[in-house]
Amino acid sequence: MNRAGEGVATEDRLLGGRVRLRQPADGYRAAIDPVLLAAAVTATPGERVLDLGCGVGAAALCLLARRPDLRVTGLELQPELAELARINAAANDHADRFEVVTGSALAPPAAIAPGGFAQVITNPPFALAGAGTVPPDRSKALAHVEAGFDLAGWIRAAARALAPKGRLWVIHRADRLDALLAAFAGRGLGEVRVLPLWPKAGRPAGRVIVSARKGSRAPFALLPGLVLHRDDGGYSPAAEAVLRDAAALGGD
Amino acid sequence: MNRAGEGVATEDRLLGGRVRLRQPADGYRAAIDPVLLAAAVTATPGERVLDLGCGVGAAALCLLARRPDLRVTGLELQPELAELARINAAANDHADRFEVVTGSALAPPAAIAPGGFAQVITNPPFALAGAGTVPPDRSKALAHVEAGFDLAGWIRAAARALAPKGRLWVIHRADRLDALLAAFAGRGLGEVRVLPLWPKAGRPAGRVIVSARKGSRAPFALLPGLVLHRDDGGYSPAAEAVLRDAAALGGD
Repeated sequence: MNRAGEGVATEDRLLGGRVRLRQPADGYRAAIDPVLLAAAVTATPGERVLDLGCGVGAAALCLLARRPDLRVTGLELQPELAELARINAAANDHADRFEVVTGSALAPPAAIAPGGFAQVITNPPFALAGAGTVPPDRSKALAHVEAGFDLAGWIRAAARALAPKGRLWVIHRADRLDALLAAFAGRGLGEVRVLPLWPKAGRPAGRVIVSARKGSRAPFALLPGLVLHRDDGGYSPAAEAVLRDAAALGGD
Repeated sequence: MNRAGEGVATEDRLLGGRVRLRQPADGYRAAIDPVLLAAAVTATPGERVLDLGCGVGAAALCLLARRPDLRVTGLELQPELAELARINAAANDHADRFEVVTGSALAPPAAIAPGGFAQVITNPPFALAGAGTVPPDRSKALAHVEAGFDLAGWIRAAARALAPKGRLWVIHRADRLDALLAAFAGRGLGEVRVLPLWPKAGRPAGRVIVSARKGSRAPFALLPGLVLHRDDGGYSPAAEAVLRDAAALGGD
């Protein structure tokens, strides 16, 4: 197999086998972040969802596994990942609910209409400048280790795609929460809620899922979040429910 | 008693009786916020600490109860509260370690030298605009319910008072964390750490203690924080240790 154009693809399973995911063997690989992101989304049946920077479709397909009543558009810069996302959509019987568009999140193509989405979900590339060497693999470099990544531009594009009262859902490194909140400023986003993902009880958060609502003036909230692992290293019961049994995460 | 100039003063005890605190009976009254703020501070013996907006001295005296090796300057706008802070300093045998200056945090007097403090602690007035009626009491209005309060100006003054590598400690409403982090921007503050105070397990944070270091470029961190109450309403053992036994809170 060499469908990704740059290397061997593997097929993995997410959500206790509910989602089959073909992805490059040697680039950025979906782990639990997109699963957790998809689990956090609350939406009304029939709503249109944009997955900004959808990669091979992990978050979109996890969301559709739980909520087949939604329609998802994925936007992905790398053609080989977009093509895998289309293959994955078909393999999971969601080709009619998950459309994949190739293009830049920072300059979205016409298919991504401003105000066209009730929900925007995104797992932005991580900016790891200064945090070690950059792996030589191009796909991984583009997806998760691009120094100087324009997080503010990414959030601006997400906010623009949102319909009024639409909701944005972002999973990101907890040590970039300050930059993420700064990127929200001036974008008409309110009702900001931070859901921390704690690697273990008593440890600093590793990831955060941050939601915000376009045009809302409701106050900021810091939610209790989810402890992912027991002290012995296994997943916590609450994390198991989300990752294996497709339970919702957080919510109102 | 009418030493506060506007009403009757009461004497309360904090930190399991370690701190005697005279405060107005009918204005803003110190509860557990200043005790928690003081418990979070890590400092080197002999360091100078500024308590910006010190009120009657609750946080300063709680800090000195645990760390009599420090020297604290309090800045308080309201003369009647500043006078109570001086009385409280003497009553707790800390008059030689706790100097109280009357003046505005937003335009500090010459006694508050720029760069003069290794630590700045502050419990800024809460901006509660739109969150109900403003109590008629002037002291309470000034201390905690002033609409349009200049949080950015308050943090700017705090950052200016800090020595290089000095650390700022702020306790604030969790639903204002976004505004607080925005106020940090452009002030040369790094190594920002958010310590959530959870009213109970599974509830959104009620307060946050946010620390930052002047001139540091260390990343942001979201710490696990402290659960204050058990499900039955009593204090958690960890909270008891901090509030009654003068234990430190958090730390490195």
